[in-house]
Amino acid sequence: MSSKRVFGFLICLFLISGAVIGQEKSKIVSSLFDEALTNETAYRQLEYLCRNTKGRIPGSAAAAEAVEYTRQALINAGADSVWLQKVPVPHWERGKEGCRIISSVYGPADLSITALGLSVGTSDDGILSNIIEVHDFDELKKLGNKNIEGKIVFFNRPFDNKLINTFAGYGGAVNQRTSGAAEAAKYGALAVLVRSATNALDNFPHTGVTRYQDDVNKIPAVAVSTLDAELLSKYLKSDPLLKIHLISTCRNFPDTWSYNVIGEIKGDSLPGEYITVGGHLDAWDIAEGAHDDGGGCVQAIEMIRLFKKTGIRPKRTIRAVMFMNEEMTGTGGRIYAEEAKKKGEIHYAALESDRGVLSPRGFLFDAEGTRLEKLCALSQYFKPFNIPDFDKGGGGSDIGHLKPMGALQIGYLPEIQRYFYYHHSANDTFEQVNFRELQMGSAAIASLIYLIDKLNL
Amino acid sequence: MSSKRVFGFLICLFLISGAVIGQEKSKIVSSLFDEALTNETAYRQLEYLCRNTKGRIPGSAAAAEAVEYTRQALINAGADSVWLQKVPVPHWERGKEGCRIISSVYGPADLSITALGLSVGTSDDGILSNIIEVHDFDELKKLGNKNIEGKIVFFNRPFDNKLINTFAGYGGAVNQRTSGAAEAAKYGALAVLVRSATNALDNFPHTGVTRYQDDVNKIPAVAVSTLDAELLSKYLKSDPLLKIHLISTCRNFPDTWSYNVIGEIKGDSLPGEYITVGGHLDAWDIAEGAHDDGGGCVQAIEMIRLFKKTGIRPKRTIRAVMFMNEEMTGTGGRIYAEEAKKKGEIHYAALESDRGVLSPRGFLFDAEGTRLEKLCALSQYFKPFNIPDFDKGGGGSDIGHLKPMGALQIGYLPEIQRYFYYHHSANDTFEQVNFRELQMGSAAIASLIYLIDKLNL
Repeated sequence: MSSKRVFGFLICLFLISGAVIGQEKSKIVSSLFDEALTNETAYRQLEYLCRNTKGRIPGSAAAAEAVEYTRQALINAGADSVWLQKVPVPHWERGKEGCRIISSVYGPADLSITALGLSVGTSDDGILSNIIEVHDFDELKKLGNKNIEGKIVFFNRPFDNKLINTFAGYGGAVNQRTSGAAEAAKYGALAVLVRSATNALDNFPHTGVTRYQDDVNKIPAVAVSTLDAELLSKYLKSDPLLKIHLISTCRNFPDTWSYNVIGEIKGDSLPGEYITVGGHLDAWDIAEGAHDDGGGCVQAIEMIRLFKKTGIRPKRTIRAVMFMNEEMTGTGGRIYAEEAKKKGEIHYAALESDRGVLSPRGFLFDAEGTRLEKLCALSQYFKPFNIPDFDKGGGGSDIGHLKPMGALQIGYLPEIQRYFYYHHSANDTFEQVNFRELQMGSAAIASLIYLIDKLNL
Repeated sequence: MSSKRVFGFLICLFLISGAVIGQEKSKIVSSLFDEALTNETAYRQLEYLCRNTKGRIPGSAAAAEAVEYTRQALINAGADSVWLQKVPVPHWERGKEGCRIISSVYGPADLSITALGLSVGTSDDGILSNIIEVHDFDELKKLGNKNIEGKIVFFNRPFDNKLINTFAGYGGAVNQRTSGAAEAAKYGALAVLVRSATNALDNFPHTGVTRYQDDVNKIPAVAVSTLDAELLSKYLKSDPLLKIHLISTCRNFPDTWSYNVIGEIKGDSLPGEYITVGGHLDAWDIAEGAHDDGGGCVQAIEMIRLFKKTGIRPKRTIRAVMFMNEEMTGTGGRIYAEEAKKKGEIHYAALESDRGVLSPRGFLFDAEGTRLEKLCALSQYFKPFNIPDFDKGGGGSDIGHLKPMGALQIGYLPEIQRYFYYHHSANDTFEQVNFRELQMGSAAIASLIYLIDKLNL
């Protein structure tokens, strides 16, 4: 054989073996999907979390139950080691709630409300006052003390429903909830009533955290359902002097303790490098927390089960983490990163599933240049599963603390058109989750982590 | 200016004007999405169909009500003309239903069943007999008369849940329902009990049509929920001699009449060429018919409203058609094509939305070569809306009759993972449809038809 021929032969061998290796990876990805779509373990775990640990806000008995349940689930999934990580969390409790319009034009009408998380409460008798509708903080400033002092402020800026990215719609409306109370208090408001941060036009009020400023008076903050926000706005047009009787006796207590729940498969050749896959275990007290974020949690546990079941032995140590207290003050993610840093762990990559568990559409990577290109090229493995969107983008708030330590940030991207119909409301129930959609996501996440680890991306 | 420069200038002008024209089309597509996502008309029409014309099988009073309601809706949408087209339809009525296991090992247990459409019934006293489980027609043949005669046959082949394309899963299981009764009767079976054609493991029985053969005895056919199919299968393993008491007193009556509902916008420059967009108006008697296929109907009506509202004047005549009797014998689609042929109409293209109305994923085109390439290239207009799947594929059974007349067949492709959880069951309700997902589909369909007409594709 001439040297030219030998060279040609070697090139052929190289290409063929490359193709075979590619086929092998595709086969493993297929086996992950096969197993996920024919086993109900994760779906039943989610059912348990929804039915038995509903309303698991940090520090609650339900959260403690969820911690113990997922710890056990990680052991059952076959994790090499499972442990709890102590996390300081706020302790806030909802009280009596009610909100009535008192109008000489329309008569009385009760509004569907829910206190915002970490809000201070009213007295037992509540607040009786006039109400003024605003749409943003500029309008608040223009109205100033003379129009606002001694009144309840009603923030009523809707989602821009023309935005295809519903998270952008949320982003355009949510500062009324997070900062409305602090901003309105600067002008002497007594309380705020905030239009629920949702695309839906229905009667579910959507809660979520509100944040105060140290130097500003803390005033009660509640969300009102979008239909009742429309009603109140209509009433105000004909009867601007109507009064609102608002009762919300929620309270903040001294901080307490809860836990992150962590399970891992020890890496085969690079055990000192870590890949973290997480969701957050806490959920709002009025919700079952199915899409937000029980689903993300069971997908992480399911990744461990899928790796074990299909015999994948990762190079790096792969962790499933149920972060505690994402919704209120984010201490779970912070403590996890702090301890990792203290121990000198190398965090290679981290993925968060916290956009609900509707059908998978793809993944977002916080990377640049060639690395981003290589990560996006992984979409080839997901073509048979109709998961096309591999793009640049963000991860999630819990794993964000690992970014300064160099961990690649990955966001799981499911279908998102209906997500905010559920988010932070009593409508976020197990019934809204479909087995196949949840498990297509579990398989996609497990496959991506397998490929990133295998290919050192 | 030199002639070379003049040439260069003209080329530039051509490229710029091309880009401007492309931008103009993108703008129109955007305006269709904007309007669809901020107007609830179609969603409320679907609510009306689900609440007020539930169970609208051909020939029923509910179907007549749906015909009149959608006729009015097409007028309100601004169609230039609206009319009804008479269609012969079967007349079948469900009767009393019940199915009980009588087992000396387990005791009695009631199964959740529903008669298959067009099935003959049992007597009022029902059938009491042994039952034999089979999985396909080969098994039936192998068992033969000696094992089957005088028994009820229980078809229990599940969906292959590993298939990502749930329609392929359906395709692999549905012949038990459509032909099981006819096949089992050949070997002397008394009746058939068929596992519901669904991915779901739950207690909803899913109906659907069953077809007899002229020369074979017609025997009663019912579907059983998947959970109860599992139960029965388990019982049979320990107690193969258990009996089934099956009552299903449904009946077939002489054929009757119903209508296709048609509305059109007259074409501006090519009014003699037609583009048809349709769904089917009939729905199974146990269902609200939200995903199957009230949603497809209101998307077609919404296309008319969107064209009128945004001022699109199509070259060709654009029709919205609510086909009657897709579910049973498909006469609506056949009559529509026959009349078109009689009148010498030129049918340019036809689109059917009958895969549910979850979030849009794309369109399927029954085309080849350059035409297919050009159609798939339309995906560029849908990138801002995350609708990526433009591919070769089929249209739908109603519009299939227009294919021999040369009409391009187009299928609307939404997200399909959870579709068969609803299909043909009492679980197909208005609550399972999301406003944004429905309307993303309406806008996508209107946009595609606008582009195909505009670009003569």
